[in-house]
Amino acid sequence: MSKKCVVAIIMGSDSDLSVMSEAKKVLDDNAVSCEMKILSAHRSPDDAARFAKQARKQGIKIIIAGAGGAAHLAGVVASHTTLPVIGVPMETKELKGIDSLFSIVQMPSGVPVATVTIGKSGAKNAAILALEILSLSDKRLEKKLENFKKSLVEDIRDKNLKL
Amino acid sequence: MSKKCVVAIIMGSDSDLSVMSEAKKVLDDNAVSCEMKILSAHRSPDDAARFAKQARKQGIKIIIAGAGGAAHLAGVVASHTTLPVIGVPMETKELKGIDSLFSIVQMPSGVPVATVTIGKSGAKNAAILALEILSLSDKRLEKKLENFKKSLVEDIRDKNLKL
Amino acid sequence: MSKKCVVAIIMGSDSDLSVMSEAKKVLDDNAVSCEMKILSAHRSPDDAARFAKQARKQGIKIIIAGAGGAAHLAGVVASHTTLPVIGVPMETKELKGIDSLFSIVQMPSGVPVATVTIGKSGAKNAAILALEILSLSDKRLEKKLENFKKSLVEDIRDKNLKL
Amino acid sequence: MSKKCVVAIIMGSDSDLSVMSEAKKVLDDNAVSCEMKILSAHRSPDDAARFAKQARKQGIKIIIAGAGGAAHLAGVVASHTTLPVIGVPMETKELKGIDSLFSIVQMPSGVPVATVTIGKSGAKNAAILALEILSLSDKRLEKKLENFKKSLVEDIRDKNLKL
Amino acid sequence: MSKKCVVAIIMGSDSDLSVMSEAKKVLDDNAVSCEMKILSAHRSPDDAARFAKQARKQGIKIIIAGAGGAAHLAGVVASHTTLPVIGVPMETKELKGIDSLFSIVQMPSGVPVATVTIGKSGAKNAAILALEILSLSDKRLEKKLENFKKSLVEDIRDKNLKL
Amino acid sequence: MSKKCVVAIIMGSDSDLSVMSEAKKVLDDNAVSCEMKILSAHRSPDDAARFAKQARKQGIKIIIAGAGGAAHLAGVVASHTTLPVIGVPMETKELKGIDSLFSIVQMPSGVPVATVTIGKSGAKNAAILALEILSLSDKRLEKKLENFKKSLVEDIRDKNLKL
Amino acid sequence: MSKKCVVAIIMGSDSDLSVMSEAKKVLDDNAVSCEMKILSAHRSPDDAARFAKQARKQGIKIIIAGAGGAAHLAGVVASHTTLPVIGVPMETKELKGIDSLFSIVQMPSGVPVATVTIGKSGAKNAAILALEILSLSDKRLEKKLENFKKSLVEDIRDKNLKL
Amino acid sequence: MSKKCVVAIIMGSDSDLSVMSEAKKVLDDNAVSCEMKILSAHRSPDDAARFAKQARKQGIKIIIAGAGGAAHLAGVVASHTTLPVIGVPMETKELKGIDSLFSIVQMPSGVPVATVTIGKSGAKNAAILALEILSLSDKRLEKKLENFKKSLVEDIRDKNLKL
Repeated sequence: MSKKCVVAIIMGSDSDLSVMSEAKKVLDDNAVSCEMKILSAHRSPDDAARFAKQARKQGIKIIIAGAGGAAHLAGVVASHTTLPVIGVPMETKELKGIDSLFSIVQMPSGVPVATVTIGKSGAKNAAILALEILSLSDKRLEKKLENFKKSLVEDIRDKNLKL
Repeated sequence: MSKKCVVAIIMGSDSDLSVMSEAKKVLDDNAVSCEMKILSAHRSPDDAARFAKQARKQGIKIIIAGAGGAAHLAGVVASHTTLPVIGVPMETKELKGIDSLFSIVQMPSGVPVATVTIGKSGAKNAAILALEILSLSDKRLEKKLENFKKSLVEDIRDKNLKL
Repeated sequence: MSKKCVVAIIMGSDSDLSVMSEAKKVLDDNAVSCEMKILSAHRSPDDAARFAKQARKQGIKIIIAGAGGAAHLAGVVASHTTLPVIGVPMETKELKGIDSLFSIVQMPSGVPVATVTIGKSGAKNAAILALEILSLSDKRLEKKLENFKKSLVEDIRDKNLKL
Repeated sequence: MSKKCVVAIIMGSDSDLSVMSEAKKVLDDNAVSCEMKILSAHRSPDDAARFAKQARKQGIKIIIAGAGGAAHLAGVVASHTTLPVIGVPMETKELKGIDSLFSIVQMPSGVPVATVTIGKSGAKNAAILALEILSLSDKRLEKKLENFKKSLVEDIRDKNLKL
Repeated sequence: MSKKCVVAIIMGSDSDLSVMSEAKKVLDDNAVSCEMKILSAHRSPDDAARFAKQARKQGIKIIIAGAGGAAHLAGVVASHTTLPVIGVPMETKELKGIDSLFSIVQMPSGVPVATVTIGKSGAKNAAILALEILSLSDKRLEKKLENFKKSLVEDIRDKNLKL
Repeated sequence: MSKKCVVAIIMGSDSDLSVMSEAKKVLDDNAVSCEMKILSAHRSPDDAARFAKQARKQGIKIIIAGAGGAAHLAGVVASHTTLPVIGVPMETKELKGIDSLFSIVQMPSGVPVATVTIGKSGAKNAAILALEILSLSDKRLEKKLENFKKSLVEDIRDKNLKL
Repeated sequence: MSKKCVVAIIMGSDSDLSVMSEAKKVLDDNAVSCEMKILSAHRSPDDAARFAKQARKQGIKIIIAGAGGAAHLAGVVASHTTLPVIGVPMETKELKGIDSLFSIVQMPSGVPVATVTIGKSGAKNAAILALEILSLSDKRLEKKLENFKKSLVEDIRDKNLKL
Repeated sequence: MSKKCVVAIIMGSDSDLSVMSEAKKVLDDNAVSCEMKILSAHRSPDDAARFAKQARKQGIKIIIAGAGGAAHLAGVVASHTTLPVIGVPMETKELKGIDSLFSIVQMPSGVPVATVTIGKSGAKNAAILALEILSLSDKRLEKKLENFKKSLVEDIRDKNLKL
């Protein structure tokens, strides 16, 4: 990843791209530098471990990891870094993402993964959670988030007017 | 909560105290100022909303919320703040915490909750996740977390020697 | 909502409109004044709380709330009112509404939500349940419900004749 | 049941008595006349049907029905009355009450059951829901419920003082 | 039902017709007299009870009941007859028939329902189970079933030849 | 099994004995000749197959099979006989019998198993279902079952008197 | 099966062919002799048992068995052979393969089935697992597997270049 | 591990020792050299990876991995070796091991884990599966397994004699 990348968005397969792009869009919209990368806990484990070990030194602050099924990517990355890792459970064909959810959220004591909603809403929420974390030392993002929260209210009020 | 409180640990009921104390212990051990408070999304909703709205201004940086069943506390708090909110699903008598997990993790697009493991491991992990977030602008905690990660490895190696 | 509204039908998102309209249709058919409104427990929490707190004074007698996923709307509203609140769990894309069901029905002791069937049948049943409640002090509705019950029997008898 | 009974509390088996007594206690505490009766949808179906058919004429206003497993009692009673029926899913030995929950809540369009929490919290909540319904035409109960809501807040505040 | 009906196939709704017809086809193919009827445990409870009470006297030997969701039909019928009742859980839109399965199979001690596979395979199997029961006093059916069992083997052998 | 055995009660392990004895007790009480035997689909498959193939010739009319986990006993026996096979899902330590239930009830088209309640209630119900089947050509049992049904009602009425 | 068959791929129904062919493709690509056969635990139990009993003598080293629902094929075959048996749970229409998974994996102590992923990924993985087992005494396959592992990494790196 | 170790038994935590010892006992009883080691996918990831990468060169033939919750150990090890990896899902306090099962069995295409029963039966079965695999090139073990299979039958026959 490039030097300036603040949030890394990784995913277990290129089939997760359309979902995980939702995270990138939110970060782009808020001018937070981010990059996407495919890294599999099972198919390219050394690449995944190397990425995780170097992430902090490289300037990355938050890692968002999407994976499905026996979804180990977020956990594997969390095992190699002290950065906050956000896990997005992908919907799966058969078990609908409940396998992904359990594999991501049920981490053992000592190695947390911040798990969000299954699927597209989760990818968006992962990005917003990243903004919230970054906002702790970034007044610009704090303001952005406040405006975003207001816009959520306005949106609903507008929809009620049209009802 | 007092002025110096950096991480607020809230919970829906005093029956969650023994579990959520695990979070406090981790934060205390790392000299991060935190306080515990009982706040119910359903029984004291105005207190919960007021707390959430003022949290950021008051100097709180992260909110850890534990709740069980139709566990709305984390979500309700997240709806009123731009701070990162970490949700700990409590084990429940009948559904074993799967109700708590779904109620906390399946948040709609726009309002994330960083969900961790069900039960005690979750309470500990919530605190570690808080440390990871705080470490982004705190070299002391970054060092602490690195040492903690090393101690996890050493513990296991020691146990193998005793096998 | 207007002064004459007796049953308020609220929902977490405009995507719930087609389902929740089933409730409105049943109430309209029985000449019970009702209105629909979008209110999100997470995106417009103050509007939702304000609505709930004023509902009783405003003359509303029953609140029907539909929501999906970490479906907190019914519970949040119930926390602010002494009116009966009926919750309709929406079907969700991944977990099929079992997340909505658990989030709505597993309320803590002290704050009940009257939960009905997942999805469209639930929206209809919420309205019928409202009619049943209102019929306790409305002979017209009691008669209507008796006729409705008879029509259910007749419908099935007719279908058997056509078999 | 006696003439003055306003809320009937029925249950599928005498093993449900300790749970369902929680409902009676709440109603007794609020001076709402209620009675308990064992009626099984499967073992005494005619008694259950007869009870349900006569309930409204007899002056009963609300029926609370607790049952476990293939928990048909609430649904069977609802099929014979236009009164609001509240269903309490009992915890079961093997499936932990998820069988009871599905059997009670997933009613077909036309015959609602107002389902509450699984187990003891459900029994209490069924009674509170009954109070809410009765309060629509009873100022005394409306006042009682307002006080109860305040006491919930006070309880939590007191617990925080003791923390 | 007509006098000669040996197996009654009942179902909760006309939407179950296409599935339950599979049972009729198997019985027709084996020249066992059967009839289909719509009877709802919830919408036409008295008709269902009356049917169940008279079934044995009328000459019916086995009742096959298909229903979905809070699927009480088989259980309600079983509560009124000493005939063997076979339950077919219908697939449901949201919970996929697991609600139907639990509502049918988890009967309390004293009132069994012989539950078969969810959906179309279940409807066929209900009819075969009926044939097995009838074969205990019908040599013709015993022979038929033996031939059917052989045909199952032959079918698979034929398919292997074509592989 | 002895010549006179009418109902065979088989089970996958001697740890199922205490549960399956409930079936024997019901049959003994009704003077229906039955025997219990341990036969494992996985550990003694040839014995199980041999038993199933000879059962009908030997005079057995109904087979009750209890098993837990990947509970194949009922299905394996059903694959070798044209007799009605009743399956009792055992409670399991980890998955609570839902594994047993799915393994027994979800039989493919062509080979039904009449599945009853999980655990002890299931064992009793299997025996009652056997009595219902046998009663089709046994007036004595028909009478017995009618009396049993009446006793269920009486029991509940008695319990209400004591309430 | 022919003399030279090293891996037997069996399945419960010809509807499983398209999924199980994925296993054959992997084995063909690695020049491991294999054959496919339809064998049902329930519809052709004697053929299945005969196949399993002779498999080892015939030169077969590994059996891959795919089945859905009450998926007994792998377990039944494992009960008759000392060869390693790999089970592939098929996706099912209603329960999505969770029934197949439980029926295959929850084998009793003494008779293991090596269970893999539900559906197509499982069929592929069953073949790779077979290659891993065969590689223990086959240097050619060991080399093939090493190359395959490298190709998994290269594939992901290539996809990242195209991102 | 020592040079002569043929089967490595690894586990995520020393709390898994009592369960995983069941595997060791079976291997010891069959004179297959094995060793136990604690290795955590999350707490000692480099040790786990190093072990997995060297296992084959070191002479290990099969790896048995037990883990619970977000049970990544088996998958992580499988990502680094071409040896067959057998996964044992541990029972967990809250979700009873269904989280462990999904995390172990739902591996992506390309990296299989041979999953066995949840808990103690699984640990035993993992060892027997290892014996089956080793028996492909070890006549002694083939004979041992045949005798074991016979002993399973004899055990059951003996138990029947005592019935």
